[in-house]
Amino acid sequence: MTVKEALEQISAFENTYSALNHASGILYYDGDTVAPEGSVEIRALTLGELSRMSYELITSEKFIDALETLNENIDELSEIDKRKVKELYREYDNTRKIPMQEMIDFQIHLTESSAVWHKAKENNDFASFEPYLQKTFDTLKKFATYTDPEKDPYDVCLDKYERGLTKEKCDKFFNALREKLVPLIERIKNTNQIDDSVLHLNYPKSQQEKFTDYLVDVMDIDRKHFTVGETEHPFTINFTSKDVRITTHYYEDNLASSLYSVVHECGHALYELNSMPELFRTTLEGGVSMAIHESQSRFYENIIGRSRPFCELILPFLKNEFPEQLGDIDGDSFYRMINRSEPSLIRTEADELTYALHVMVRYELEKRMISGEICAKDLPSEWRRLYKEYLGVDVPDDKHGVLQDSHWSNANIGYFPSYALGSAYGAQMLNEMKKDIDVDAVIRSGKLTAINDWLREKIWKFGCLYDPTDLFNMVCGEFEPDVYVDYLEKKFTEVYKI
Amino acid sequence: MTVKEALEQISAFENTYSALNHASGILYYDGDTVAPEGSVEIRALTLGELSRMSYELITSEKFIDALETLNENIDELSEIDKRKVKELYREYDNTRKIPMQEMIDFQIHLTESSAVWHKAKENNDFASFEPYLQKTFDTLKKFATYTDPEKDPYDVCLDKYERGLTKEKCDKFFNALREKLVPLIERIKNTNQIDDSVLHLNYPKSQQEKFTDYLVDVMDIDRKHFTVGETEHPFTINFTSKDVRITTHYYEDNLASSLYSVVHECGHALYELNSMPELFRTTLEGGVSMAIHESQSRFYENIIGRSRPFCELILPFLKNEFPEQLGDIDGDSFYRMINRSEPSLIRTEADELTYALHVMVRYELEKRMISGEICAKDLPSEWRRLYKEYLGVDVPDDKHGVLQDSHWSNANIGYFPSYALGSAYGAQMLNEMKKDIDVDAVIRSGKLTAINDWLREKIWKFGCLYDPTDLFNMVCGEFEPDVYVDYLEKKFTEVYKI
Repeated sequence: MTVKEALEQISAFENTYSALNHASGILYYDGDTVAPEGSVEIRALTLGELSRMSYELITSEKFIDALETLNENIDELSEIDKRKVKELYREYDNTRKIPMQEMIDFQIHLTESSAVWHKAKENNDFASFEPYLQKTFDTLKKFATYTDPEKDPYDVCLDKYERGLTKEKCDKFFNALREKLVPLIERIKNTNQIDDSVLHLNYPKSQQEKFTDYLVDVMDIDRKHFTVGETEHPFTINFTSKDVRITTHYYEDNLASSLYSVVHECGHALYELNSMPELFRTTLEGGVSMAIHESQSRFYENIIGRSRPFCELILPFLKNEFPEQLGDIDGDSFYRMINRSEPSLIRTEADELTYALHVMVRYELEKRMISGEICAKDLPSEWRRLYKEYLGVDVPDDKHGVLQDSHWSNANIGYFPSYALGSAYGAQMLNEMKKDIDVDAVIRSGKLTAINDWLREKIWKFGCLYDPTDLFNMVCGEFEPDVYVDYLEKKFTEVYKI
Repeated sequence: MTVKEALEQISAFENTYSALNHASGILYYDGDTVAPEGSVEIRALTLGELSRMSYELITSEKFIDALETLNENIDELSEIDKRKVKELYREYDNTRKIPMQEMIDFQIHLTESSAVWHKAKENNDFASFEPYLQKTFDTLKKFATYTDPEKDPYDVCLDKYERGLTKEKCDKFFNALREKLVPLIERIKNTNQIDDSVLHLNYPKSQQEKFTDYLVDVMDIDRKHFTVGETEHPFTINFTSKDVRITTHYYEDNLASSLYSVVHECGHALYELNSMPELFRTTLEGGVSMAIHESQSRFYENIIGRSRPFCELILPFLKNEFPEQLGDIDGDSFYRMINRSEPSLIRTEADELTYALHVMVRYELEKRMISGEICAKDLPSEWRRLYKEYLGVDVPDDKHGVLQDSHWSNANIGYFPSYALGSAYGAQMLNEMKKDIDVDAVIRSGKLTAINDWLREKIWKFGCLYDPTDLFNMVCGEFEPDVYVDYLEKKFTEVYKI
């Protein structure tokens, strides 16, 4: 096989692989949005079949021969092709080590698990979900021994979402955070709390939808390749850079909920929409890792979206839409309400300061589930114990506890630390961005275009061309958690005037 | 290969084939309902890939060997397996005769064509759609010469939707209809027209949605495997009998439009939902042909839905929901309004009597397009001419003319005659049904369960086990178009008191 033939082979592979991923993704999206309840069984069977096809494709002789040909002639290849060979080889290697039937069975299990979780959450019924969750943890642990028998299985899980991330690094990072944040949270607890009750008046859904439209305009997202749907749990899903969808959930008694879901998911969407055209439908298209992804979504949500100029920007629109609810509120009060900090039950509704503690609970539990120290049936009580210990709150039921997030039902285990790491990355990115542009002025202009442009050039366009740590270092230098802690201290001492 | 091995092979084939069809169907549904506009290109590429995989699967040596083994031992097989072998061989034979790349290219073309048609209709711009439509007709004609070089290409198109249907049979059927219906339509024209203006008052969408819910209840459809969505052009799509979706379109100034779309599509849905369990995810699951399908949908829409007892059944619900609009209307007036007959522009809004003339226009044009007598650029003017000739109406623009239906954009050419044939089938089915149950009493009971049960036992459960003509004959004996004509004459002379 010549290099040219091998490249053609890889291109044909990517064509098929991308189609299978696209089809699976649409099936998943449909299942989560509009599919009838009784369609779970056939969706599971179909997704199982599609994953079998992907498996056969990536372990096919034709494909491996092409990869090997390219590997032997790696110096002749462009930078993009070099990276592609490396990434595809990694994917092949991780796939082939897991027996095909086990992988298909797991895929079918997960489709069912996701449906069972939805119902379990609705009915506050952890017992029905427990065997599925136990099986998910057990399977991931087994798969980790297949792919990386010499590594700690939880490190294998972490590495899947953020290459190079380990328990050791997480422990260090979370300890540093806890040490600084817990006293700050304590100081706020002992001061006058901000009254944000006006954010919990009645905000009709139809008007919140108009507000979503406005936010998409402010964030300057190309609607030709983007939609907003509705689901119980907001998420972003992408089918190449030409079709990216976000979802949100409207609560009529909570103005901030959908607002910050939308801004958060739009951050993910912008990242996915802006890979350079050369990467279209290749294995290198889209976000490189979950921490980099969350650094974008949480950057928009908190650093931009919960900043003083952003709050001042959106308030006139909101006052116009909701004059009875917000007519009397000024910019400073609105900004402070939006940044009200108080330990709470639900991660996605948590304020910027206490958020990391929610992540730490999940991190601790995942670590101990994978090590075998606890099992699924212990999770509800351990969840309660840790929420009391870390956040000082009592968990009333599993719906507001261990069942709140969709991640575990989809086997996204090792994902949660990325949220906190991404948040910390974001603080360093802000400092770098400020060297080039006047961030506050861009926000006040009502269009985030210049911020988007900066991130596109520094991060988005590269897709998966660089390892996430390398990419972060290219933009921000070494990772320093203190930058994040300083950012939070400065912001919240000012918000609370302490 | 043993018979047992061959059967296992076929079962594995059906598993994969069903998954590919499911995935393609969901992509199509998503594209028509919620996908962003700019996703057409990747959807086309993905659907092209999936159709390549289907092609390779059905022409694979493994599959053909299994089919041949079963064919050689056909007497050992169950009735279901015998039929399966016959149907799969037919599908294989039709597929292999079309070169793979041509089939993939056509699939990609159709995804684009569908998107172009949507925009063309919106903008009343036939010119943009014309080259796509010409290519569709040209390709179908070419494919017909591949699969059945000895047959007339339009007969090949007709046979695809209704096995055994030919131009000759259609001409005979349509001539018989025209001969009897045109004088009747003429008589109505010369009598006092029914005033149905109250059906065109304002009917808010949110209340029409409640009415849809009510109709689904009346039709006794299992919501666990069924949903109602919204699209410009209503349709039914099914992913096995476990997941069937219909769509409708709400016009606030037209109460009857969504009402009869829903009832029509629910007829299709009931058929698809009720194949016997033995056929689940096999090639024999679901409706056997388009005329049988339309015989169900148009049976519910017209024979049931536009009957006097049905109108009397739904009126109290409607009066309660729309007291200002319908408070003064009695059952007889409502029934007559619903059955107002007048030549018009839009097929899907046409009354039961003039409906067949709309179909005939399309039939004539398809015939002449395929024979090469006219080409796509002639269609708008020929459409106008035939609407004037057959229905006596002037077509104001292509949006209300040649661009109104989605069928041609999806290469559904040869489909339209099934609507008229199905309507005629329905009249004979009614006569048979009346021998066993009191149809009017079932309608008046408010649940169509007993009607559904009859159709399930006689038609639905068999899926594709019998050829459509055989199935029809089993239920109704020989096809007699006069039964349909008599039904229409009796109904409309009574409605118009002539």
